[in-house]
This record gives sequence, C-alpha cells and structure tokens, in this order.
Amino acid sequence: MNSKLRITFIGRIMRARDLITFNGTPGKFNSITDIDDIEVGHSTIIKGHNKLIVGEGPIRTGVTIIFPRGKANFNTPVFAAYDVLNGNGEMTGTTWVEESGFLETPIGITNTHSVGIVRDSLIKWITNYSTSSNIPRFSLPVIAETYDGVLNDINGHHISEEHVLEAINNSKQFPVEEGNIGGGTGMICHQFKGGIGTSSRTVNINGNSYSVGTLVQANYGIRKRLTINGLNIGNQLSYNLPEIQDDYTPGNGSIIVIVATNAPLLPNQLKRLARRPSLGIGNVGGIGSNGSGDIFLAFSTANINAFNRKENTSIEMLSNDMIDPLLQSVVESTEESIINALFAAKTMIGINDNKVYELPLGKLKTILN
Amino acid sequence: MNSKLRITFIGRIMRARDLITFNGTPGKFNSITDIDDIEVGHSTIIKGHNKLIVGEGPIRTGVTIIFPRGKANFNTPVFAAYDVLNGNGEMTGTTWVEESGFLETPIGITNTHSVGIVRDSLIKWITNYSTSSNIPRFSLPVIAETYDGVLNDINGHHISEEHVLEAINNSKQFPVEEGNIGGGTGMICHQFKGGIGTSSRTVNINGNSYSVGTLVQANYGIRKRLTINGLNIGNQLSYNLPEIQDDYTPGNGSIIVIVATNAPLLPNQLKRLARRPSLGIGNVGGIGSNGSGDIFLAFSTANINAFNRKENTSIEMLSNDMIDPLLQSVVESTEESIINALFAAKTMIGINDNKVYELPLGKLKTILN
Amino acid sequence: MNSKLRITFIGRIMRARDLITFNGTPGKFNSITDIDDIEVGHSTIIKGHNKLIVGEGPIRTGVTIIFPRGKANFNTPVFAAYDVLNGNGEMTGTTWVEESGFLETPIGITNTHSVGIVRDSLIKWITNYSTSSNIPRFSLPVIAETYDGVLNDINGHHISEEHVLEAINNSKQFPVEEGNIGGGTGMICHQFKGGIGTSSRTVNINGNSYSVGTLVQANYGIRKRLTINGLNIGNQLSYNLPEIQDDYTPGNGSIIVIVATNAPLLPNQLKRLARRPSLGIGNVGGIGSNGSGDIFLAFSTANINAFNRKENTSIEMLSNDMIDPLLQSVVESTEESIINALFAAKTMIGINDNKVYELPLGKLKTILN
Amino acid sequence: MNSKLRITFIGRIMRARDLITFNGTPGKFNSITDIDDIEVGHSTIIKGHNKLIVGEGPIRTGVTIIFPRGKANFNTPVFAAYDVLNGNGEMTGTTWVEESGFLETPIGITNTHSVGIVRDSLIKWITNYSTSSNIPRFSLPVIAETYDGVLNDINGHHISEEHVLEAINNSKQFPVEEGNIGGGTGMICHQFKGGIGTSSRTVNINGNSYSVGTLVQANYGIRKRLTINGLNIGNQLSYNLPEIQDDYTPGNGSIIVIVATNAPLLPNQLKRLARRPSLGIGNVGGIGSNGSGDIFLAFSTANINAFNRKENTSIEMLSNDMIDPLLQSVVESTEESIINALFAAKTMIGINDNKVYELPLGKLKTILN
Repeated sequence: MNSKLRITFIGRIMRARDLITFNGTPGKFNSITDIDDIEVGHSTIIKGHNKLIVGEGPIRTGVTIIFPRGKANFNTPVFAAYDVLNGNGEMTGTTWVEESGFLETPIGITNTHSVGIVRDSLIKWITNYSTSSNIPRFSLPVIAETYDGVLNDINGHHISEEHVLEAINNSKQFPVEEGNIGGGTGMICHQFKGGIGTSSRTVNINGNSYSVGTLVQANYGIRKRLTINGLNIGNQLSYNLPEIQDDYTPGNGSIIVIVATNAPLLPNQLKRLARRPSLGIGNVGGIGSNGSGDIFLAFSTANINAFNRKENTSIEMLSNDMIDPLLQSVVESTEESIINALFAAKTMIGINDNKVYELPLGKLKTILN
Repeated sequence: MNSKLRITFIGRIMRARDLITFNGTPGKFNSITDIDDIEVGHSTIIKGHNKLIVGEGPIRTGVTIIFPRGKANFNTPVFAAYDVLNGNGEMTGTTWVEESGFLETPIGITNTHSVGIVRDSLIKWITNYSTSSNIPRFSLPVIAETYDGVLNDINGHHISEEHVLEAINNSKQFPVEEGNIGGGTGMICHQFKGGIGTSSRTVNINGNSYSVGTLVQANYGIRKRLTINGLNIGNQLSYNLPEIQDDYTPGNGSIIVIVATNAPLLPNQLKRLARRPSLGIGNVGGIGSNGSGDIFLAFSTANINAFNRKENTSIEMLSNDMIDPLLQSVVESTEESIINALFAAKTMIGINDNKVYELPLGKLKTILN
Repeated sequence: MNSKLRITFIGRIMRARDLITFNGTPGKFNSITDIDDIEVGHSTIIKGHNKLIVGEGPIRTGVTIIFPRGKANFNTPVFAAYDVLNGNGEMTGTTWVEESGFLETPIGITNTHSVGIVRDSLIKWITNYSTSSNIPRFSLPVIAETYDGVLNDINGHHISEEHVLEAINNSKQFPVEEGNIGGGTGMICHQFKGGIGTSSRTVNINGNSYSVGTLVQANYGIRKRLTINGLNIGNQLSYNLPEIQDDYTPGNGSIIVIVATNAPLLPNQLKRLARRPSLGIGNVGGIGSNGSGDIFLAFSTANINAFNRKENTSIEMLSNDMIDPLLQSVVESTEESIINALFAAKTMIGINDNKVYELPLGKLKTILN
Repeated sequence: MNSKLRITFIGRIMRARDLITFNGTPGKFNSITDIDDIEVGHSTIIKGHNKLIVGEGPIRTGVTIIFPRGKANFNTPVFAAYDVLNGNGEMTGTTWVEESGFLETPIGITNTHSVGIVRDSLIKWITNYSTSSNIPRFSLPVIAETYDGVLNDINGHHISEEHVLEAINNSKQFPVEEGNIGGGTGMICHQFKGGIGTSSRTVNINGNSYSVGTLVQANYGIRKRLTINGLNIGNQLSYNLPEIQDDYTPGNGSIIVIVATNAPLLPNQLKRLARRPSLGIGNVGGIGSNGSGDIFLAFSTANINAFNRKENTSIEMLSNDMIDPLLQSVVESTEESIINALFAAKTMIGINDNKVYELPLGKLKTILN
C-alpha cells in the first residue's frame, strides 16, 4: 500500500513535495542537477541474504559520483568551500579546497570503509585522460562517506574500481534517482530507511535568477526527533523501528550534504553556504550527534574561467548584502532533500536479516492532514 | 491585556514554558544561573523621547555582565571555546580563548558601538584587584554586542564606565531578568521586541546529573520565519510590524549565545557545544543572515583547578560518546532562551518614535491552541 | 656613538638594509606605504619619569592608524584575511573580516589595555562622516595590540580619543616613522627596544609588477634566539639586557603584522599571505611563545570596486600557481620589518626606571663583518 | 666519497648532528621513537629502470606506518591535533581528530596516489582484530602523502595491501631508518634527494623531563633557499641540480610532519605544537609554496586512559604557561629532522632516468667550517 503511494497518479515516484508544503520555489526538477551542467551517477550493489559472512555479504552498498560541471568538463575546477557540523566522518580533499578555493575533481560518496578505493580509482580515471592538455600531475579528489554497516557487509570491501567507473558512466543530468541507490544504498535516517535525496531552490536577486541545489546522503538521526514541516512526526510514527540483531546505537550515522549554486560566489562566500546545511538538518530534528559525520561541501558553477594556471582571471562576485536568499535556500533545500531521501527509500533487509523500514507515506499523509 | 498576561496568577513574569511545551527538563530556575555559581548583572539606560539628537538621545541601551564562577571567583578561569554561525559582529577576546582553551575574564554584552568602553572598563575593574596574588598583568576580556541603533542613540556612546560597574555590582545568581534589560534593552527579534533571554536543561549521563544553560541577547530574524514549537507563527502574527522612520532592513541584527555547563568538558569538547546554538536558532526560524553577528561562547564550570600557571593539573573529562544529551540540551535551551526573550520583552518606543511591538501573548496562546 | 650611527651620512635614519643584505627587491621606500595609497599615522605619548603611579605615569605609549586606501578613501573596503601564530592577544573585527572577506575600516594598533578606547573612538570618527552616502550604520573596526606595561603606565589608560584623532590626522604616505613611535612606543623585541618597523618587496609575476609591504609592532622574543641574516646575534650580544625592577618574564610580548599587497588576491588567497609572517618571525628567532599574541592581517588594495551593497562586481584574480613570489615576499618583508624596528628604536627608560637598551648598531656591524 | 662520509667511524650512518651544532638536547636516539612506545615501520619498493611505462615502472615508492603507542596498543587512542601551513596535500582522518581530540588509529604516509589503498588496507588490518573487545565498528585512519612522481611510476599505483602489512610488520622502536625508505623513498627536498627524517628533544619543565619527537617526509623546497644552521647553503651548493626529463617545477613538493610528545597536553594544546613545524621548515628555507602540502599532526602519549566510551576519565594537563620549551622543541626538531632526511638520502635515478642527487656531505662539511 505504501509502495503504491510512492507512485503518484502520473506514474512517477512520489516526492516529499507531493504531500508537504515547503517554503521556496524549486528548480525545474527540484534537484541538484537543476544547476547548470551538474551530473550525478550511481553504482548500486545489492547481493545476498541472511547471515553476514565478511567478504561474501550480504552486500547493500554503492557509490555516487557528482560532476560539478558535467562529465565532459570534469577537469574544469569550480570555486568551493566546506564546513563541518560534527566531524565523525571523512571527506578527503578538503585541505586543498580550503587552501586554494577550488574543487578540481568530481565528488564521490560511498561507505566509510571504501573511501580509499573510490579515491584511488577516481584518480586513475582522471589520469587516464592524461593526453589532455590540462590534466594535473596529481589529484586530491573529494570523497565522502557514511556508514552502512548495519545493513551491508562493510568489512567485505565490496566496492571496486569497476563500480566507480560504472557510477561515472551512469552519470547524467536527469533524473537523479533517490533513496536506496549509489552511496545511499544501505543508509538509515531517523531510524527509517534513508539514502540519497536531492532538492533545489530558485531565487531572484536584483533581477537575476539564481539556483541552489543540494544532494544528501542521509544516514543520521533518531526517530523521536524526526520533524517534518515543524511537526514532530517521530513521536507519532514510533513503530516500525529498525529490527537489528547486532549491537546498534540509533542515530550514530552521518549526513553528507553537497551544495551547488550558479550564483557567482567567491570561495569565502561559499563557506557561508557550506555552514547552512546544519540549520536544515536541525529543522528535520538532527542535532549533529557525537557519532555523526556531518560534512558539507558547497561549490559554484559560475566563473567557469576562474581557474587558470598562468594568467590572471576575471571573476564575477555577488554582493554579500544580496546573499540571504541563497543562505535561506540552502537551509530549505537541505531539509527537503532529507525528506526526499526518506520518501524514496524503501524497506530493506540486509546482513543478519537486519531490517529497516521505509517511512510509511500513507500514515504520514494522515498525520499531516 | 498582553501586559497583564505577562504576569501569571502567581505573580511572576510569564515565561515561554507557561504556554509552550518544550523538550527536555529545565534546571530549577530554567536559567543559565542554574549552573553552579554563575552570576548575571545588568545595567539599563532608558532616557529621553522623540527625535534623535546624537549625543543626547533617546537612549535605549545597556550592559550585561556574566561571571562564569560568580563575582567572588572572577579570576578563576573556566575552560571555554567559541564558534560562529554568521560573523557580522564582534566578540573580543576569542583569539586567546581559542589558543589557551580558557576564558579568564567575565563576559560583557552590550551594543555594537560600546564594546570598547565595556572592554577597557572591565579591565580597569579587574586590575583594581591587583593586590590579589593571581591578577594577571594584562587582560583580554570577552565582550560581545548586537546593534540597537534602531531604538537607541547608538552613536551617542552613552555607555560609560559607571554602567559597567553597575552591571558588575548588580550581578547575582537569581533571578535573571529578561527582555528589555542590560545589553538587551534596545534589541529586536523576528521584528518583535527582543533582548535578553535564558533557559537551562538538566540531563542524566551515566548516573551523573549535568546541566546546560544558555543566555541570549536576541536581535535577529524576520517575522515571516518566526517559528515556535515547529509552527510558523510569523505568518499568523504578520501585523504589529516595527514602525520605523529610518532606513531599516529587517533581520539585520544579531544574536549572541552564551552556553554554560557543569559537565567536565575539555576545550575541544566545548567547541562542540559552541557549534550547537545554530540549530536552536534555526528551529526558531533564523538562517544566520548576512547582517547578523551570530557568535557563541561555551564554557564549563567543572575542573575549577584546571588553570594553574606553574603546576600540572588534574582534569576530569566526559567521554565523547556520552556528549549527545549535552549537545541536544544546547539546541533546546537556545531555542527556549530566544522565546523567553520574546515573552519578557515589552513594546518599546525609541529614537524618532520608532516603535517595536512585543510578542502578543494572548494571540499567541490562541494560535497555539 | 650608536645614536650617531643611526644617522647615515646622507642624513637619514639608518635602516637595517644599510648594514645587512636581505633577499629580494624592496619598493621605493621599503615601506608598507609603497603599496598604492596606504597611509600610516602615529600618535605618541611620552611623559613623566621614575616611579609608577597608576593614572599619572610615566607614560610610554601611543596609537598607530593604517588607512589601507588612504584617509580620503577610508570607507572603501579592501579584501582581507587574518591568521594567528599564537593567540595571546587581541585583534578586534576579525570575525567579520573572516566572514565577509572585506576589511571595511582603518586599522588601529595600540597597547593591550587601550584597544577599547581606540575602537570606539575610531567608530566615532567614522560615523562623523555620516552625511556621506556610504557610511555604514555600524562599524566593526580592526584594532590590535601589544603589551607595553614594562615601560608604560598601562593601567593608567592614557590613550584618549584625541590621540586617535591625532594619529588619524598625522597619517601620511611617506615617510613611515619606525621604532619608539605610535603604538610601538613602549615595546620590547628580543629584549632590545622594539616598536614599529616596516619593509616592502617588489616582484614580477608574468610581466606584472606587484608589491608586498609589511608593518610590524614588534614586542616579542628572547635575546638568545635573536637571529639576523641567519646568524645567532643574541648569543654574541648577550649584554645590555633590560634592567627591570618589576616582575618580568622575557619574551612574553607579542607581534602584530599587517601585510599589504596590490596583487589582485581573493580573500582566501590573502589568508595564505596572512599565514606567512610566522616564517619571517621564525627566521628572526621567534617561536610564537605562550605569552605572545602573534596576529596577522593581510589585505589587497587591488579590486577597488569589489565592495558593493547591491550590484555584482567584477574582480580580478591572480592565479594560485603564480602566488609563490608573494608568499616569499611576506616572509622576507616581515623579517626585515622586525629588524628595521630594532634599528630605529632607541634606548628607553620608563616606569620605575625600567630600562630597555637599543640594539647596538656599531657592535652589530662588527659582528656582521 | 660522500657515501663513505655517510658512515661514521663507529660504523653507523652519519646524521646531521655529526657535522652540525643544533640547539637543544636530543633524546637517546634523536628519533620520534624516543617518546614512550612509538614504533615506525617502512615498506619500500624499488624496482625497474629507465623509461616510464605506467603500470610497470620504474617504481620508487613505499609506505611508512607510525604506531603512537606501539603496535601492541594500536587501538588505544592518543590526544591529537593537526594544522596546515599550505594545504596542497592530503591527510585523511583529520576531521575526526579535530572534532574528538583523539587520534584513534595508526598513521600512514605514502605517495599522493596511494593514500586510498593505504587507508582501506589499514582499516582491514584494524578490523581483523575484531574479536578484541574495543575495536571500533568503523575506522577513519590518518593517511598523509607527498608526491613522488618525479622518480616513481606514481600512476602505476604499485602500493598494495601487502606493502601496508609489511610496513606494519616491520614496525619497531629502534632504529628508525631515514632517507630513501618507506613513504620517503622517492622524495626530493630542496632539489636534493629527500625522504624520511627524524629527531627529538628532551626538556626539563618544573622538574619533569619531557620529550618531543618529529618525523618528516620531506619533499619540498628549492635549492637556492636551502639554509642549514642559518647559512644559505643552497647558493653555495648550486650544482648537482636534479636532472629531470619531464615537465618539472622545482619546489612543488610537500612535507608531512608528525610531532609526538609525552608531555600531558590537551588536544587544544597539541594544536599549538602542530602549528610550530612551520617555523622549523622556515628555518631550513621553506616558504610553504603553492604546490606544497605542508600538513602537520601532533599527538601526546601521556594520558593513556583518556579515551573511554562510557566513563569519565581523569586527565593530567600541563600548564599553558610552561609550554614554551615544547614549542621551541618542535621548531628545532623539525629543522633537524629535515636535515637528517637530507643526510640519509642517497642519490637516486628513477623514471625516465630522472636523477636526483644527494646532499654532498663532504662539500657541506667544508662550507660549514
């Protein structure tokens, strides 16, 4: 019944906005890929059942790759910055983003124990293009993670180079799949099934239209704090808690948020955007708990010629005084992305028959009414 | 009528908790002063009416002083850390807090253009005790501010040393006055009258009872995002907007949050607490807008012997894995402190007859029901 | 004899470069004011002798004001960033510099206990221009300090608004006085008399000539680590240590370094420059000791139209790959500025007849040969 | 001849201290392993000659593993902090170090493109011990890198899990090999052959003896700035520059510095130590150039019981006022570690017959005399 509700009458997957009124105006597809040429690709591995045998499975994991300017322009850097709400996690490559103001590589998101293989594999893919004139001698890619070991044989290290290549090859602008897909495959959010979610906002600043998009890999939070549209939903949906055989501390997950905009922001202004997903997470009931790796990266697709190894470049810059609609959009779009992840994710059974339930949309609809 | 509602039947000022159900268990007085020996003192200047004549008035300003260990132990440092949501503001002394891990002075909060006089006056007061054996040769006090120039003759610089001394002398543990008082006298919050607010939480961790308290000087936010208990109240209370003759951009204020705990946290753990007021502000509808100086300081009254100039000291440390109830308490207590400020503040008319209305409690009660 | 040596045969004050070979090419006046329209003004107070009577003297202090674009353009912001080697000091205004990427005010440098009066007085001066169309409603000026209480009645708080105005009025582009002047009046460096020093470098990047200038208020360091041109001079000049009656811990001072460039750097690139004075200080023998407030601010005079409250602006940006000559210039110019301060400062007797000797230039010359 | 000079009359490798007088007192072996139970292990791969064929070789690379408490106590965390001089590099795991104040894993150092395989392999090794009671569910190890692609087939990705295990198995307390070994195998420093170097200092603070040790993987710097003992050696040793067939920008390397101490420092105090390698690098002539990843980690082996998942712990803390000897030791030990790396490293010919010469010790001896 709930599964049916996930398909709306026009045949597409139901998204949060079909049931809930959010602030702000989304972009065309309400997706991070609304921003210029951004592409997202997933590789998903779901294999095996029942008892965990490390190295064999069951496997519930994957990789998600984001190309800030599309795959065709993978080596044209974007201005970027990052921030942290609670740092119990990994995002490689941030030291150079912070120092240089540029993100020079695609972004990967995967499980905690596969960050290394995704990093090195992405470097291999980048350096395979070494006949190109502007491939760097070395690469410091941005790879982030959340922990899927409640459902996935995480110590089996099942992600390999081929999955990274698959995610790269799968990358496209529309549509971005959500829920149990790519890096989000085995994730848990507010003790419902979580995963990948995305959203966007369009704002008008001084006659210019700008967009902000976010993509989350949501794996954090406890049920009783789950808040949708200001309502504490968690207390009303207190059943269907995860059925976990293993030692398990609810809420000990993480959330990665990637923020994109086409507004012409400098790196220090993007830092301001990167600090705002915290508030969106807070609005859904997160607190940035000790076990959570809440790490955020923001980039701008404007200023396509900003990066140059030899010449001075000319940059367009938005006035700080005009930035508020973008800050607010990050808050709103992060919130909606998380709830989109919850809407799209379906009940999953993983290692040791651990079972995580999907958000019951029918019941939610009743509550919201 | 509203003013009457502010006094409950038992004769005390109504606080938010009288109308609203908040998460968590407050301390005895639901105040930052619930934590050990903390004292708070205010000096308030309200003088003159009508047209602004710089240097004459009208004056609507003040100073608030916080003693982390009480006035009697003003020179016994506390472990401390600070963080920033949006840095359009000032908090002096943070460089040494960050470097040393200690807050060695009382805290002052005032208006933007009087930070200097409060700082130097506080130093004078400290060095007057120079017969004491452990008065430092020099002092780098923590003074923070928000902007009250919509109601106050801020460029008249009406705060003087005597007001700082008055706030010091007034300092006491109970009760902490809220609203139009001390540094909060001329402040505006979500386009209602704002000011000082406080709250606290008590949690049980591993059999130990710990408290978290917060004090805010709330001067930020726009009406239409005002959220109380998850409900967007701002859209329903869209009247009684400030009546301002001058050039005025709503929401261009700031919020200072002081977080105190008696839990034995190291400076790097206090940094984690200092990062959480953002989420409480977000829950009330703030976004950390460009014009806002949202700066937060957290300190712990535990480890009273930690600071020693010559000897190694013995410190107690809470396990990181046990910190979540404290993080959540900061979020909740910040939220309630802001709403307490709104409950206590009364309608004020300031320079050029600019008028800022109080939160209409009667109407709020109706909406919440 | 040494005093004579301080005057070269052409009648001007001797500077370090007259005796020492430094790396790099200085600007025309080897001064921070070589960069575009920068102006520096000092106000110096030297009054009274013998025993310290707090509030009376002796007084050995002052204020230095720096206008990044000259006094005439005091309200045209510059891109800026700051960094800290050891944070036992104060630099107000840095929170907004970090957040916005802009320095919007003149810079003040004074003694530790007069930061407040300099800050508020500078705000008064700024707001006196309030008929101008682009005076901000409020101001968060950058005021830094080092401690002169070994020679000066620091708790007498002798700096007043008039001295700030005097420094402002005195500001000019050439020449910048060094040594016992302005904020540097009562300072001590490597246990010789210290104070204000300045230097600059000119480099060629891709056919463009850029300059870097530094100004220091040098008040740090112990004698035995004093290093000039790689030579440990301190061990050879181990006599003429300060003669101090009071409790005194050598090396417990600080150094403020202001870095200016006309190269078109973004705020995040200026952060990179702001991190380099540490290395210049290290080359003179500093270690950033616990008692030291080593705080650095870097700004760029390029991109004069970057700041705009309403419109997007067009910015020029230097390639990160071209930045090394600027980084190296900061290291070199900081080193030379410190040694210039030592060359210019003369022996001073202050409170309680505490005496601090000047660097003996004649002896130094002998050692260097 | 130089090679001979590398062996002193007592049959051991010559180290910098055999020719040069450094400040301070080293520990017993003048090595990072002088501190408590620290162990260091290397795995070195040197294979093939002549033309680069990606995937085949020549190979000049390796891995170095550091156990802060020795291999036997690999899972007992240490207090830690990190800092950055110039961030063109990678050090994974720092987000959690910064957040928690603990380093919970061994440290790996390798080449830029093998960080991933070293990370995931180290996780595998850690989780193999999962029968132990205190193995964490997940791991965020600290892996750092510098670029060896001038001599090594870096895009051949020759490091595999077996090399990580070999470095782990090789780990021991004494002696620590230096030069062309482990992660340092293919590195270049000031355009001489660089690599691994180590040093230590012992200081007396208030009657307690504490040690500071450093280990560097040195791969940075240009010849003409090479400074030894304050003397510009680079200008006098301007021959034997690297003979490189490929596109090569001198100085575009990096330096990783690991700082260890047994002094009881809190994480925020370790941050202070982590900021001081910059000054040691500066003293050898480094400037933190744009292409350099200068990333530093500091940890303390004291407070062995600090980490506990459930109970409060009791910590010993050194007074900030007593920290200077430790800060100075970091500066000095970093400097000596770099020069030790230069002393130990031997001339190497790598891919495409690129040749990097060793520091000519005989000639250096002549210059220093």
